[in-house]
Amino acid sequence: MENNKDKKSALHIAKGITETPSFKKKQLARFKRRKPSVEELLQGILAQDRLLLSQAITLVESQKASDRIKADQLIEACLQQQKSSLRLGITGSPGVGKSTFIESFGQMLIQKGFRPAILAIDPSSQRTGGSILGDKTRMQTLSSHPQAFVRPSPAGDALGGVARKTREAIFLCETAGFSPIIIETVGVGQSELAVHSMVDFFMLLLLPNAGDELQGIKRGVVEMADLLLVNKADGEALQAAKRSKQQYRNALHLFPAQKSGWTPKVSLASGLHAQGLEAIWEQIQDYCQLTQNNNYWSQRRAEQAEYWMRQSIEQELLRHFYEHPKVQSQWPGWQSAVRNGQTSSFRAARELLKLVQKED
Amino acid sequence: MENNKDKKSALHIAKGITETPSFKKKQLARFKRRKPSVEELLQGILAQDRLLLSQAITLVESQKASDRIKADQLIEACLQQQKSSLRLGITGSPGVGKSTFIESFGQMLIQKGFRPAILAIDPSSQRTGGSILGDKTRMQTLSSHPQAFVRPSPAGDALGGVARKTREAIFLCETAGFSPIIIETVGVGQSELAVHSMVDFFMLLLLPNAGDELQGIKRGVVEMADLLLVNKADGEALQAAKRSKQQYRNALHLFPAQKSGWTPKVSLASGLHAQGLEAIWEQIQDYCQLTQNNNYWSQRRAEQAEYWMRQSIEQELLRHFYEHPKVQSQWPGWQSAVRNGQTSSFRAARELLKLVQKED
Repeated sequence: MENNKDKKSALHIAKGITETPSFKKKQLARFKRRKPSVEELLQGILAQDRLLLSQAITLVESQKASDRIKADQLIEACLQQQKSSLRLGITGSPGVGKSTFIESFGQMLIQKGFRPAILAIDPSSQRTGGSILGDKTRMQTLSSHPQAFVRPSPAGDALGGVARKTREAIFLCETAGFSPIIIETVGVGQSELAVHSMVDFFMLLLLPNAGDELQGIKRGVVEMADLLLVNKADGEALQAAKRSKQQYRNALHLFPAQKSGWTPKVSLASGLHAQGLEAIWEQIQDYCQLTQNNNYWSQRRAEQAEYWMRQSIEQELLRHFYEHPKVQSQWPGWQSAVRNGQTSSFRAARELLKLVQKED
Repeated sequence: MENNKDKKSALHIAKGITETPSFKKKQLARFKRRKPSVEELLQGILAQDRLLLSQAITLVESQKASDRIKADQLIEACLQQQKSSLRLGITGSPGVGKSTFIESFGQMLIQKGFRPAILAIDPSSQRTGGSILGDKTRMQTLSSHPQAFVRPSPAGDALGGVARKTREAIFLCETAGFSPIIIETVGVGQSELAVHSMVDFFMLLLLPNAGDELQGIKRGVVEMADLLLVNKADGEALQAAKRSKQQYRNALHLFPAQKSGWTPKVSLASGLHAQGLEAIWEQIQDYCQLTQNNNYWSQRRAEQAEYWMRQSIEQELLRHFYEHPKVQSQWPGWQSAVRNGQTSSFRAARELLKLVQKED
């Protein structure tokens, strides 16, 4: 669902799941025999069955054309359910403690009666040799908790593909009654923009020494954040974290205002010691209230949906051009002539376009 | 030219122009009879003839197909000349004093023996009813100075078109020996990114009260700046300007580092009283030296050229799609279904693409 029909629903308390271990075993046996139908997947998701939800996400991640058709039918069916949720984005450099923070934050949410789902976008996983959530020792408690759902990043794909699959996985998790949906990404590539474009609230985790760790953060990411979260604010680092908080607060004051009417906040937290989490949750609730009252919430959801429609169209148009055999064979020559200043960017563009476009 | 072959050349001292009033009159009479040929334009530009340069810019601004062919030939011929220059971008909210600053800064450059050219990008001019440089009373001294060249924005076009024409005008001005080329834009739309993508050094002008005027500046623009320039730092505003300078300096420290290795600076200036201009010029020279030494300068020029090639291609591919009659007729229905959450962004994208793409 793109619209928020019920203003309170993003923060509603979800019912507990009803599955039992024996039910799970029966399901598992059935999956080993044959793939579930779209209707079975939908009913399973609606029954909050985490195993069928996993199967459904595997389906939307599949590259097979026949799976793609089923995935589309399933997503359309899920959208008809118009379930709502709160979508949170979390980014930060490697080592800032994202997993530990989410582990603590997720447990606090469960104690409040929520059922959080955690999805990851990590297009760099193939390059760096390990996905965000690939390490089995991370988020151990949440991963095995019956009220939570943790799904690692689909590895080894272009950002466009990963982003699309993640966006579809959000719909599936929402249909299964999970909320909040937490989307995690590493703040070092293009993926923060993708995550920012699919969440309601965007958090940037930082280390206690202001400025020190920003070398790895992409320019522009700080300004996208609704909340700067100074993590590891415990022990000897607490004083440094407090100074950083004040510095970031002063700095944010000097940057342009958000369209939402929200003033980005700076909070301290310790994921490890589960400190500062209540205050963060209050900030998020304040944001929800503000943007639901001023209508920015639903307006942004609608804009995000249209953004992804345009993104899909434009990615496909560009893919079709750049992967065209004639373009691929002539590209290097034009590229080097343009980079060396021997020909104009515009002439090279026109000549390359001629290879693909027919006369209209 | 895209490459900087001679490391000192961007800051070289240009020779004075040789044209005489009587020569000018003769030229003018000739233009009234017939349009100059590409060769005549090129020779005129190389002879540093401002009148023929103006004619050439009018040619690249023309929408006529026959003019477009001539314009392309002229641009290619200019690129062969491999003239270099320093390209400066200046942005800031309306009322921050851009024109007054450029008027003073340009005169200082002339005193140093440079021949500055000032170009404007203002795609909003049609909306607001007046182009940046349209007001004849602005930059009066520079406009009439024989060592300078001032060209108002081509009015009433989409940003893509204006940006392209401005980039071509840069080549023409460079071939005529002008340097620095100063590109001015209002910091309230999409045009700062376009300007940032065609200059070597990007300045953001701000008012003395830090933060107050940022409401109009687009998010992300502050982070693009190589220099934040607190203008109108004179009289009673001087103390506020000094405080703002310190605040901005602290704030910039907390934002990610630039790829260039340059730490963005904050300077005070008074365009009206021509104060602080020497220090700004020194900052720009420091930047040139740093980036020419670490090779970022030529690498960025090459990347910008490729960027504009890709931009041109992608704009044309999207234009072709979005202006397709079938897409235009079916767009509103899919758009509203997607915005309302009735159908997925991805399905709508696929259905719309089917209208245009043939089976490969």
